[in-house]
Amino acid sequence: MKIGIAGASGYSGETLVNLLLRHPQVELAAVTSRQLAGKCLSEVMPSTRGPGDKLAFTVSDPVAMAAREDIAVWFLALPHGVAAEYASALIAAGKRVFDLSADFRLGTPALYKEYYEHDHPAPELIAKSAYVIPELKALADWQHKSLIACPGCYPTSIQLPLIPLLRAGLLETKGIVINSYSGISGAGRQAKEFYSFAERTESMTAYGQPKHRHLSEIEEQLGAAAGRDVIVQFNPHLAPLKRGILSTITVPAAAGATIEAVYAAWNATYTERPFVKVLPSGTYPDTAAVQHTNRADMMGVHDRRTGNFIVTCAIDNLLKGAAGQAIQNFNLALGFPETAGLY
Amino acid sequence: MKIGIAGASGYSGETLVNLLLRHPQVELAAVTSRQLAGKCLSEVMPSTRGPGDKLAFTVSDPVAMAAREDIAVWFLALPHGVAAEYASALIAAGKRVFDLSADFRLGTPALYKEYYEHDHPAPELIAKSAYVIPELKALADWQHKSLIACPGCYPTSIQLPLIPLLRAGLLETKGIVINSYSGISGAGRQAKEFYSFAERTESMTAYGQPKHRHLSEIEEQLGAAAGRDVIVQFNPHLAPLKRGILSTITVPAAAGATIEAVYAAWNATYTERPFVKVLPSGTYPDTAAVQHTNRADMMGVHDRRTGNFIVTCAIDNLLKGAAGQAIQNFNLALGFPETAGLY
Amino acid sequence: MKIGIAGASGYSGETLVNLLLRHPQVELAAVTSRQLAGKCLSEVMPSTRGPGDKLAFTVSDPVAMAAREDIAVWFLALPHGVAAEYASALIAAGKRVFDLSADFRLGTPALYKEYYEHDHPAPELIAKSAYVIPELKALADWQHKSLIACPGCYPTSIQLPLIPLLRAGLLETKGIVINSYSGISGAGRQAKEFYSFAERTESMTAYGQPKHRHLSEIEEQLGAAAGRDVIVQFNPHLAPLKRGILSTITVPAAAGATIEAVYAAWNATYTERPFVKVLPSGTYPDTAAVQHTNRADMMGVHDRRTGNFIVTCAIDNLLKGAAGQAIQNFNLALGFPETAGLY
Amino acid sequence: MKIGIAGASGYSGETLVNLLLRHPQVELAAVTSRQLAGKCLSEVMPSTRGPGDKLAFTVSDPVAMAAREDIAVWFLALPHGVAAEYASALIAAGKRVFDLSADFRLGTPALYKEYYEHDHPAPELIAKSAYVIPELKALADWQHKSLIACPGCYPTSIQLPLIPLLRAGLLETKGIVINSYSGISGAGRQAKEFYSFAERTESMTAYGQPKHRHLSEIEEQLGAAAGRDVIVQFNPHLAPLKRGILSTITVPAAAGATIEAVYAAWNATYTERPFVKVLPSGTYPDTAAVQHTNRADMMGVHDRRTGNFIVTCAIDNLLKGAAGQAIQNFNLALGFPETAGLY
Repeated sequence: MKIGIAGASGYSGETLVNLLLRHPQVELAAVTSRQLAGKCLSEVMPSTRGPGDKLAFTVSDPVAMAAREDIAVWFLALPHGVAAEYASALIAAGKRVFDLSADFRLGTPALYKEYYEHDHPAPELIAKSAYVIPELKALADWQHKSLIACPGCYPTSIQLPLIPLLRAGLLETKGIVINSYSGISGAGRQAKEFYSFAERTESMTAYGQPKHRHLSEIEEQLGAAAGRDVIVQFNPHLAPLKRGILSTITVPAAAGATIEAVYAAWNATYTERPFVKVLPSGTYPDTAAVQHTNRADMMGVHDRRTGNFIVTCAIDNLLKGAAGQAIQNFNLALGFPETAGLY
Repeated sequence: MKIGIAGASGYSGETLVNLLLRHPQVELAAVTSRQLAGKCLSEVMPSTRGPGDKLAFTVSDPVAMAAREDIAVWFLALPHGVAAEYASALIAAGKRVFDLSADFRLGTPALYKEYYEHDHPAPELIAKSAYVIPELKALADWQHKSLIACPGCYPTSIQLPLIPLLRAGLLETKGIVINSYSGISGAGRQAKEFYSFAERTESMTAYGQPKHRHLSEIEEQLGAAAGRDVIVQFNPHLAPLKRGILSTITVPAAAGATIEAVYAAWNATYTERPFVKVLPSGTYPDTAAVQHTNRADMMGVHDRRTGNFIVTCAIDNLLKGAAGQAIQNFNLALGFPETAGLY
Repeated sequence: MKIGIAGASGYSGETLVNLLLRHPQVELAAVTSRQLAGKCLSEVMPSTRGPGDKLAFTVSDPVAMAAREDIAVWFLALPHGVAAEYASALIAAGKRVFDLSADFRLGTPALYKEYYEHDHPAPELIAKSAYVIPELKALADWQHKSLIACPGCYPTSIQLPLIPLLRAGLLETKGIVINSYSGISGAGRQAKEFYSFAERTESMTAYGQPKHRHLSEIEEQLGAAAGRDVIVQFNPHLAPLKRGILSTITVPAAAGATIEAVYAAWNATYTERPFVKVLPSGTYPDTAAVQHTNRADMMGVHDRRTGNFIVTCAIDNLLKGAAGQAIQNFNLALGFPETAGLY
Repeated sequence: MKIGIAGASGYSGETLVNLLLRHPQVELAAVTSRQLAGKCLSEVMPSTRGPGDKLAFTVSDPVAMAAREDIAVWFLALPHGVAAEYASALIAAGKRVFDLSADFRLGTPALYKEYYEHDHPAPELIAKSAYVIPELKALADWQHKSLIACPGCYPTSIQLPLIPLLRAGLLETKGIVINSYSGISGAGRQAKEFYSFAERTESMTAYGQPKHRHLSEIEEQLGAAAGRDVIVQFNPHLAPLKRGILSTITVPAAAGATIEAVYAAWNATYTERPFVKVLPSGTYPDTAAVQHTNRADMMGVHDRRTGNFIVTCAIDNLLKGAAGQAIQNFNLALGFPETAGLY
C-alpha cells in the first residue's frame, strides 16, 4: 500500500518518515516539502540515512498530490491553516487523510478562530473529520471517516489519564490544575536564540500562561467526557530534554471516589491496549522510559489531606504525541495490526 | 573573623566552602568531615582548587568544635538528626550557629516527628532558634538569636512569592497547588543507579507524592502568614539539570484581588532587597538565569477564566536554596553588608 | 525460532531484549539474570513495558540453559570472565552463541591475560570462535562458527573506518592517534557518585590513559589488516550524552595516498551495506544522527599541511557498538535478512 | 577606577559585564551595544539582574568612547575586524585597551589575512600590542603596552600545557595532534537550527577540519616557544555542554624526556600562579571542575608503548578562555591583585 507525507521537514514529519519507511505494510511513495523539493531525504535528514537514500522530496502541491492515483492515503505534517487547504483537495479527490496539524482538532470554527486567530480555512470538512485518540473512541465511530485529526502532544498526555475518570464520574470538574513539561523538540525545528542549547540547557521555565492554544482542545474533549463544561488551569513548561512530555495533574476527587475506582476505570479502558501502561500507585511515569516508544505510562495517587487525586502521565511528544499516534490511527482505520511499524 | 563549617562533603557544604573561602569579611578556619578528615580540601573537592589548597578537613567532633576559642560562628551542613547534636554542644559553648539542616525548621517537636519519623533530638533549642528567610522577617526579630535555621530549597522558592500575598490577604487558602522542579543536585551526592547520568538525562519525573518532608515547613510558614491553617498540594519533580528549582504555583485569587495588588505586595516587600527580583507579568523566571546567583526571580499572572493567580519563582537550590541564603543570614546577623561574598 | 539471552540486566542486555522482543523472525524464549530471576521483565525494565509484560527473568545457570532443547541460539551479555563459562556449557551442548563480552575478542590467551589480568577461562574455545564486524569479514569465513565474538563499542567505531584503508595500503602505521568520546551508558549501569548526573553533566573528561582494555582488540585487528604490528595512541573520553561514540582519528597518509583513494576504498567495502554510511568529505558524523540506529557514519579529510588524514566515525554504542551488531551477526549467520529487527 | 565595555551583547561580553559589575577595584561606567543601546542591562541580560539594574547600554561609537574623559580603560568584546577600528580611536585618545577579539592576536598582517580573509584593519597597531597569557609572559614585557590582545579559548587551553614543555625542549615538534572539545557557548549567541538544543543535545561532532582559524594563533605561539616552526593537527569538536573546553594533546616526547621533567617544567612555571593547577598524573582534568572559575587544570601521562606524552587541559571557555583572562591581564597591568574580581 502506497502512502504519502506532506510537509515532512519538521520533527513530527521526520519521525513520520522514519516510521513509515520501516512500516511492514506500506510503501512510502511520496514525501513533499516546499523548501526541500528535489533533495534526497537522507541528504537533508541524517536520521533517514539508509532507508531514505533512494527517495527525494517532491514539490508540496495539493493539486498534484490529489492527482496521484497510486497514493490513497496522505499524512499531513503541515502548519495549521495550511493543512486544511491540502485536506480539502485530497478529500475532494477521494483520498484518506491523517492530519497532524491543529486544523481539525476542534469542533467548531468559532473555537478555532478564538485560539488560532484566523477564520477556519475549511469549516465544511469539520463534519467529515474525527478527532481520534484511539484508546478513547470506539473504532466503529471513526474508522469510516476520511479525515482523521490527530491530537496534539499536550492534549494526549492529559486526556489519556483524565477521560476515563471523567466518564466514570470520579472527578470534580472544578479546580483541575495541569502542569505539563515538554522537551524542546515540542517547539519544532527552531532557528531562534531562545531555543539554542546554550540558553535551554539547565533551564526550566514556564511559558504560554494563561491561555496556550492546546487549551481549546483539552477543555473541549474533557468537557465532552464529563458531560459539562470543564475549565482547567493549564501551565505548560519547557524542560531541558529533547523528547518527552510529562503531565502532572491535580484534580479534586468526586465525593466518595477512591484510588481503587481510578485504577478500575483505567484498567477497564486500557488493559487490552498495547500503547497505554497503567503503573501501580507510587511507580512514577518518566519521560526517559517512554522515549522512542509510542507508549503512554500513567499513574495516580490519592492525597487524603487535600482530597485530590494526583495523576501523572508520560509520553514521547513525537510518537504518542504526534507521528506514532497518527500511524496507530492509520493502522486501525486500514485494518492493519495496531502495533504495525510501531513496536 | 574566623568561622567553621561542619559536614562539608555534600553539595550544599561544598558550595558553602567555596563562598566562605572568598568572603571578604571572614576566614574559613575549619572544615570538618567524618569521611574526609586529614585530606586537603582541594584534593577531594576539585571546585576548591586554588583557594582550598592550604586547608585540610578536620575530624567532625562537636566537643572539639565547641572548644575552639578562635571560632565564634559555625555553619552546619549535616544530615537532619545529626545537626541538632552539634548545635547543642556549640550553643552551650556560646557559639552562633547557622544550620542548613531540617532540625530547627519546624516549630514543634510533634510536627518534626510526624515528618522525620524520629523524636526531635534537641527540643529545648527550638525556642532559641529562628527560621529565617531574611526578606520575610524583620531583622530585629531574629538578629540576636544564637541558632538560625536556614530554610530548605523548595520552601524558599514557595514562600518568597506566596508569603507577601498571604499577608496581604490576596489569596484563597484552599486549593493551592504547587508544582516544583528540582535539579539533580537537590538530591545530594548520590551513588545510586537512579541518580546516574544515563538514567536522569532526558528524564522528567515526579516523586515524593503526596507527602514530601518539605511540606511540613511549607504549610507551617504559609499558615503563619495567612493566620489560619493552609493545606497545599505539593508535587515535587526531578528535572534533568544540575542546579535550580522552579516552582509553579496555582492559587485561587481572593475575592477582589487583582494582579496589580499582587505586584504591589511584592514590590512593597522586595524593592529594596538585592536578592529578590520581581519580573513583569509575562517575563518568565528561568532556572538558567538564576544559576550561580543567590537571587530569586518571581512573576505572576492572573487567569480570568479560572480566577487563579499563577505564580512562578526560580532559584539556585544550592545558593538561595541553601548555602547562599545561609551566608545572607550570617551577613545580616553579624552586621556585614547583605551581599558580602554573594555578589 | 526461539532464542535466549543470558545476563540481560545491563544496558547492552536491555537493548538486546528490546530488539529481540520485536525481531520478526525470532521468539525471545528466555532471559536470565542472577539478581532479577523471577521478576517480570517489564517490572524492572521500564523500556520493555508492553512487549515484555509476559516474560519473566529466569535463573542464570549455564547447565539449565544448555539443557533447554527448544533454544538453539543464546546471546551472552555477561561480564568478561563469566561469559566464557556459559559459552563452554552451551557450545558443548551444541548451541550457537553470540557473545557480547570481551572473552573471545582476542586471538591469544596471553594477550587476554595481559589486558584482563586473569587467565583466559576457556582457551580451547578460541579456535572455535570468530570475531566479527560483518562488513569487514567474508560471510563464508565465519558463518559456520558456533561462537561469535561481537566487538566492543570503541573498536567498532575505529575498525570500520581504518581497516579498509589499512588493507588498501593508504595509511602509515606509525603515528596513529585515536581520540574517542563515549556516552555515559558505555560505562554500564552504575551506582557510583562519579557517574551521577550532577557529576557528569557539563563534564568532558579523558580517562583510561594510556592503556585502556579495548586497545588490545584495536591493535590486534588493525595489525591483522595492515599485515604488520600497529601501535596506536588511544585516548578515550566520557562525554555528557547517554548513547553514542565518536572517534576522531589522525593518521599519516601513506606516500602518494589521496583522499579520493580513501573514499574509493570505503565505497568498495561499504556501498552495498545497509549499516555503514560514507559521508562526503566535510559532512561531519554526529552521534545524535546515529542514535537509536545500528548505523555507522564515517567521513575523511586530508590535511596537506600535516600530511594526515583525519577520519571520524559515529555509532550508537548500544547498537552498532553492542546489541545491534550482535543481532546483525545473528541475522547473517542464520540466513535472515541482514536488517531484520534492526531497521 | 572607571572602565567601559564595548560590544557586550555576546556571551563573552556578558561574562565581562558580570565580572566587572562585581570587581572591587573598578566601576563599570559604560557598556555599549549597537542593538541594545538605551535598554537597561538587566532587562535584556537576566544574569545581570540586581547589579545591572541601574546601568543602560549606550551607543557603540568609537569616537564618543574615545571622548569620555572619565574612562581610561576599555574592554572590547567585538567581532574581529570591528574591534581594530575601535582600538584605533581609543589608543589614539590615550586609552588602554583590552581586546577580546582576534584582531591583535597574530604577529603579522599576512597571517591575519590568510586566516581571516580580509586585510588587517589596523596593522600599525600590531607593534603597540601584546598577546598575553599572563602565566607565560614576564610582566615587564607587556605591562606598559596600551593594547593587550587576549587569547582565544582553544589557544589558551593548548598553550598553557605545551609552552613550558616546548621551552624546556621536552617535545618533538613534529606529530603533535590536538583534539579539543568546546561547549556550545563557544559558538556565541546563535539563532541557527544547528545550535538549537534539540540538535545539539546527545551530539558529539567534529567541525572546522582541517584549518580552524585558531590554528594560526596556536602555531605562531607554539613556534615561538619552540624556536622553530610548529605544524599541528588541530581537531576541534562541539560537545553538549554549555561552558568548557577540554584539550587532549598527543605529542611525541623528545629523546630522553621524562614525565618527571614535564612536571618539573610545569611546576617551575605555575606553582605560584593562582589560576593554573597542575594535577598529578592520572587525575584527569574535567570541564565541570573548572566551570565558573578562571582556572586551568592540566595533567600529563607518558605512554612508553608509543613514546608519546598525552597532555590534557580544561578551562571555562568564557572565563580563562575569554573574559576571565582579560580581567586577569587588566589586574596585572594596572597593578591590582591578580585575583581581584575573579575568585
